[in-house]
Amino acid sequence: MEADAAKFIGAGLACFGMGFTALGLGYMFAQYLAGALRNPSAADGQFGRLIFGFAVTEALGIFSLLIALLLLFAV
Amino acid sequence: MEADAAKFIGAGLACFGMGFTALGLGYMFAQYLAGALRNPSAADGQFGRLIFGFAVTEALGIFSLLIALLLLFAV
Amino acid sequence: MEADAAKFIGAGLACFGMGFTALGLGYMFAQYLAGALRNPSAADGQFGRLIFGFAVTEALGIFSLLIALLLLFAV
Repeated sequence: MEADAAKFIGAGLACFGMGFTALGLGYMFAQYLAGALRNPSAADGQFGRLIFGFAVTEALGIFSLLIALLLLFAV
Repeated sequence: MEADAAKFIGAGLACFGMGFTALGLGYMFAQYLAGALRNPSAADGQFGRLIFGFAVTEALGIFSLLIALLLLFAV
Repeated sequence: MEADAAKFIGAGLACFGMGFTALGLGYMFAQYLAGALRNPSAADGQFGRLIFGFAVTEALGIFSLLIALLLLFAV
């Protein structure tokens, strides 16, 4: 396999990182929403922690996107 | 393997990113709907957070689509 | 591997995206139906949100189908 070919396969594989990140985010929001609907008066107080968890998790998906774009256009 | 062949396999692999994103979204909506049916009076108040979670998660699936289309038509 | 052969493997891989989308949708409808059967009086009020969640999740599966069809017939 040539190096150019491997770049394109690598970019496709990098999308797994985005997919699993989205799976984790879905689980995080799902459990927050389930809890917030069970006890709505406490939901506002925990929303800041949801945003913190979302930010650090989403970052990993963005890193995967970065790797995919680097593979396609930079290396 | 030639570079052209690797592009096509890479585009197919990028679809995994979309699939796992949809799995995360399905879980998020599922738990929201389960909670909303248990406590319908609180459902409207949490709907905005569902939309926020949906938007940031869907974005990762769209990024995977972007990589797939870039592989097919741009690089 | 020749480029023509890789197209066919790529189209097959793209179907994983559709499969995982269906898994997410299945979970979403399952939880809605379980909740609706527990509290049928609230089911009508949440049906619009189920349709919204279904539409945006199904879109990701359609995108995977698009990639598969592009691989077979367009590139």
